[in-house]
Amino acid sequence: MKAAVLYEYDPEVKIQLKVESVAEPTIHAHNEVIVRIGAAGLCRTDLHVIEGVFRQAMDPHGTLLPFILGHENAGWVEAVGSSVTSVKPGDAVICHPMRTCGVCPGCRRGEDMYCERGIFPGLVANGGFAEYLLTNERSLIKLNEHITPVEVAPLADAGITAYRVAKRAVKRLTPGQSCVILGIGGLGHIALQTMNALSTAQIIAIDRSESARKLAEELGAAYVLDSGPDIVQEVRELTKGGAHAVIDFVGEKGAEQLCWQMLRRGGTHHIVGYGGEIQIPTAYMVDNEIAVEASLVGNYMELVELMELNADGRVKLHAQQYSLDDINLAIDDFKAGQFTGRGVIVP
Amino acid sequence: MKAAVLYEYDPEVKIQLKVESVAEPTIHAHNEVIVRIGAAGLCRTDLHVIEGVFRQAMDPHGTLLPFILGHENAGWVEAVGSSVTSVKPGDAVICHPMRTCGVCPGCRRGEDMYCERGIFPGLVANGGFAEYLLTNERSLIKLNEHITPVEVAPLADAGITAYRVAKRAVKRLTPGQSCVILGIGGLGHIALQTMNALSTAQIIAIDRSESARKLAEELGAAYVLDSGPDIVQEVRELTKGGAHAVIDFVGEKGAEQLCWQMLRRGGTHHIVGYGGEIQIPTAYMVDNEIAVEASLVGNYMELVELMELNADGRVKLHAQQYSLDDINLAIDDFKAGQFTGRGVIVP
Amino acid sequence: MKAAVLYEYDPEVKIQLKVESVAEPTIHAHNEVIVRIGAAGLCRTDLHVIEGVFRQAMDPHGTLLPFILGHENAGWVEAVGSSVTSVKPGDAVICHPMRTCGVCPGCRRGEDMYCERGIFPGLVANGGFAEYLLTNERSLIKLNEHITPVEVAPLADAGITAYRVAKRAVKRLTPGQSCVILGIGGLGHIALQTMNALSTAQIIAIDRSESARKLAEELGAAYVLDSGPDIVQEVRELTKGGAHAVIDFVGEKGAEQLCWQMLRRGGTHHIVGYGGEIQIPTAYMVDNEIAVEASLVGNYMELVELMELNADGRVKLHAQQYSLDDINLAIDDFKAGQFTGRGVIVP
Amino acid sequence: MKAAVLYEYDPEVKIQLKVESVAEPTIHAHNEVIVRIGAAGLCRTDLHVIEGVFRQAMDPHGTLLPFILGHENAGWVEAVGSSVTSVKPGDAVICHPMRTCGVCPGCRRGEDMYCERGIFPGLVANGGFAEYLLTNERSLIKLNEHITPVEVAPLADAGITAYRVAKRAVKRLTPGQSCVILGIGGLGHIALQTMNALSTAQIIAIDRSESARKLAEELGAAYVLDSGPDIVQEVRELTKGGAHAVIDFVGEKGAEQLCWQMLRRGGTHHIVGYGGEIQIPTAYMVDNEIAVEASLVGNYMELVELMELNADGRVKLHAQQYSLDDINLAIDDFKAGQFTGRGVIVP
Repeated sequence: MKAAVLYEYDPEVKIQLKVESVAEPTIHAHNEVIVRIGAAGLCRTDLHVIEGVFRQAMDPHGTLLPFILGHENAGWVEAVGSSVTSVKPGDAVICHPMRTCGVCPGCRRGEDMYCERGIFPGLVANGGFAEYLLTNERSLIKLNEHITPVEVAPLADAGITAYRVAKRAVKRLTPGQSCVILGIGGLGHIALQTMNALSTAQIIAIDRSESARKLAEELGAAYVLDSGPDIVQEVRELTKGGAHAVIDFVGEKGAEQLCWQMLRRGGTHHIVGYGGEIQIPTAYMVDNEIAVEASLVGNYMELVELMELNADGRVKLHAQQYSLDDINLAIDDFKAGQFTGRGVIVP
Repeated sequence: MKAAVLYEYDPEVKIQLKVESVAEPTIHAHNEVIVRIGAAGLCRTDLHVIEGVFRQAMDPHGTLLPFILGHENAGWVEAVGSSVTSVKPGDAVICHPMRTCGVCPGCRRGEDMYCERGIFPGLVANGGFAEYLLTNERSLIKLNEHITPVEVAPLADAGITAYRVAKRAVKRLTPGQSCVILGIGGLGHIALQTMNALSTAQIIAIDRSESARKLAEELGAAYVLDSGPDIVQEVRELTKGGAHAVIDFVGEKGAEQLCWQMLRRGGTHHIVGYGGEIQIPTAYMVDNEIAVEASLVGNYMELVELMELNADGRVKLHAQQYSLDDINLAIDDFKAGQFTGRGVIVP
Repeated sequence: MKAAVLYEYDPEVKIQLKVESVAEPTIHAHNEVIVRIGAAGLCRTDLHVIEGVFRQAMDPHGTLLPFILGHENAGWVEAVGSSVTSVKPGDAVICHPMRTCGVCPGCRRGEDMYCERGIFPGLVANGGFAEYLLTNERSLIKLNEHITPVEVAPLADAGITAYRVAKRAVKRLTPGQSCVILGIGGLGHIALQTMNALSTAQIIAIDRSESARKLAEELGAAYVLDSGPDIVQEVRELTKGGAHAVIDFVGEKGAEQLCWQMLRRGGTHHIVGYGGEIQIPTAYMVDNEIAVEASLVGNYMELVELMELNADGRVKLHAQQYSLDDINLAIDDFKAGQFTGRGVIVP
Repeated sequence: MKAAVLYEYDPEVKIQLKVESVAEPTIHAHNEVIVRIGAAGLCRTDLHVIEGVFRQAMDPHGTLLPFILGHENAGWVEAVGSSVTSVKPGDAVICHPMRTCGVCPGCRRGEDMYCERGIFPGLVANGGFAEYLLTNERSLIKLNEHITPVEVAPLADAGITAYRVAKRAVKRLTPGQSCVILGIGGLGHIALQTMNALSTAQIIAIDRSESARKLAEELGAAYVLDSGPDIVQEVRELTKGGAHAVIDFVGEKGAEQLCWQMLRRGGTHHIVGYGGEIQIPTAYMVDNEIAVEASLVGNYMELVELMELNADGRVKLHAQQYSLDDINLAIDDFKAGQFTGRGVIVP
């Protein structure tokens, strides 16, 4: 089959993925499933993998390469192991990014990312920038009849990460309260739509990119701001004393330090983006009784819920398609900020 | 009446409070109450007030001094304003530290510390290191019959601060999970007893003081540790991968940086102590999905609940009594770590 | 002032309220407020009061009559007691139906209906079918600038009752789940809009009245059904196994028995309407792990939140206006089901 | 192997189980496990099975008999299927009563009893009144080192049912509040210990049996009452207005009607026992804003948590042992109320 293979790490991301012919995956275990890829989302994490940022965690023995990236996968079931009963060949599916064991405490609690024996295709095993993907039954969600894989693939990871944090924030917000969303990209535009679907929180969207701000306006943000030097003060004035919540999809380059300053007493700074460092005097935290909470990739049921919002038309993905042959162009465009929303690779 | 009066700020806390005769407070408003002080707790915040740490917040115009400290008060109702119906002269009471308005959103939600018009006697108005205190009806809780003010005064502030954070932590802990309590002093020993009353969490108590560690053992901590250089590693081993929660009553001198490193994935670092600075890479936070949450002084109903735990014998205060005349000795002993638990001033 | 006065109870509700001139209320206590009525909603509870249904609870000594009904009040502050600071004459306000004390445990928890010393004007003291109403500071919420009393008066009681139960239901519903609303009248049409604002639950609206069903459709119910003999089966089929929640605004004449049969395992039957009797075999309840939960009038903060949804345009009141002189006509029309939504009396 | 086999239903439970030699179970699927039974609890449900109460649900085609009862099982792993990794032969284990699929929404949420493909050995397949039991990997929890199967077997079903409802009740109770436990038998004595471990709620234990009342006292109930004609009034007086919660382990013979009358406003009647019928006027429910909530068998993680409470010595099982040969004597003793706590069958 055709696949885009990473042969070496490169901190500059100048290296290109090699689009070549490789052996198709085969089923070895009773619960495995092979999915014919319909589309695979391109994620900032893919750039970090190429850079070698997670090298120590993902590839401690230096034995991973060459391998196939791609962890936001959707397609059609091609073949199933002997014990698989919930899907059958031909079913259109989206893949939760984690292949989980189903018996550890993390799985019991429904928190897939906490699985003790989980495998993350596209990070530590071959992923979906290819014609076929090997995964297991527990990772699969059948698509609603009128939904096609290419419309939804990036919801598999970017989508549920945004959905999980938005749902966390919504839980504490009552009508009349406000929430800042910092960064209206692949995750932020999903979070904005989720919050509008599940709450009446007044959304203040902040982004440096004009096209992102335009998208935020179209998606119904109450206020849309560029990120200038007075952004903290602007938010505190708009919200008459500070936002009740801030969702930070940037998490680096100083943004992480602005977010908690935008909060009113009792507020929460939700962190999803990373790269920087949170630095807060404990006296400020206690005096204002604020919280800083990180949020990870969503779990399987959160993906099920998000697919419902998508099927209802409440959360739509804004994406740019590229063929698998053009994957290196997609990567270059992503680095250059040439598209709004998400890039999607179609084999 | 006799009172201990602060005449000037002193960063070194070498200045002494002047124990002298001052005018008794009088009732001016319909909802005010005068309490004859039975006892008043001595708090680290009192030292910070003397140091002038909160000068800008409490005394922006430099008009506060001279004034009477003491914000952990209990005693007997001496006189009541015209509209007061829930207490009457002679009733033994404990005073929530905040005199609240009862009509703002903070009060409506039951969160007294969020009152928009709240007054904090002992910080911005005369407090309880005196024979009488002026407060209002909404701050008062009647004591159970067999309880005397001197037994409970510090529960008014230290107690509910510890109770609030312990209750927050308990909410997320299930049987078999673990919680570190860092600092077994006036607050920590209340938190430890509260957690034992409301959960079966395995408590790991950490303190540099031998007498504090001894107290922790008596109060039923599962493990009691000194705070050496390997403390993070020790906790991670004892808990087989990290604690589910850490309550930090220190919050300074580097302790605040150790706490979040003791957490397992999904854990929460509760901050109560202050003085230092939290510094966490956002990548570490997100990868481990941890939270850092500050917790403030408890609200009125939390004080009611704590008084129930106290009446039941489940949470007892360990205190050292001093007469009002000896308040400066009490302050010196506090600074020198000469007593375990809490110091209490009896007029 | 002009007022509509009840002089005797009448189980048939054939008696008419006497519209006559009575003395204006005056302020006696420091926290009282006189409101010039802009509008007062007409509620089924008013009919029950006239019928004498609550006679034993409201009027145990037979000393209440003659008195003025009307407990869904909005208007303008006319005069304030000496300690009132949060409103001033001229402010447009809506009145929470309960005049609360602010010091009992119910008030501390923010649950106004649990106030130990609460007074309910229009039920046990003179109400708002008049030119002026005596209430207190704690009952008042200032209206947003562009909102007038006549637009919102019934939100004071009908509105927050519907809002409270809708919010309870929403708390447990995730995207893709379903909720039946039985009865799309004065409360039901507010609940429907609230659920659409705060969730993506699939709403199945049921009502025997064609105009109510038409309103439900306009307000965005996913399915709108008449209540025939197969209604339980219809709901179970539409929801593929039963609804996740049912909100019952009828609560009598057998409807209360249909609701819990519409639930799937783990579902909740929320009861607001009354008059009938719930009869469920315990084996059915346990086997299906269902819950039956009553819900009362909302609290002050819930009214604040509802006013935000109203100001945003997300929850609009469908009402029919009558002058105070025509109040008996309004009552007749209400009894005859001549209007959809709510009747409002304008003095 | 030796097993106790049911050959026919008998509403009178006069029929005896036949203790005879049958074929041992064998592993057919990759995830199956054979457990050598150490002990199996005897449950009132076993009597109901013999009576044929669940005949329609369990045995719709009349093909189930002869089969082996016993659904509260603990023992040692004897053999494992090819994909089993979390347990190995020789491990001491307790069996969650439901063999679950791990892929349906119920399993994803961690709610084993909601599994769409679940099998309940002892009810619809051969159970544990035998030397060996066939189950699957997902049902097994390894015992702590110092715990033996005979000490814990009934925790598998009676235990987690009591634990689940106690945990539900605890969630809403604050210090100083009260909870009635009606029925201090096999479930009630576990619930009582759980509530004491996880809360400071004042427990009012009610039972008609003197030995049960004695046990309740030993286990730390605040009040222990016989169930006389004035029981509702007694509880309302002891609790100064009604209990905050009632847990009903009886659910029949009129007890179910007393429970909700014992509640104060806002209280919850938790139902576990069954056989009778709840009959409550909707007006009473709404006026008092009470809830009636059923609670089912606990889930896997609840069994894990309960095993922690047991290992800590906080929840101990009071049981009477019988050999497998004496199982019919055990059944007779159970029917005659000859033992307190739980009967346990040891093969």
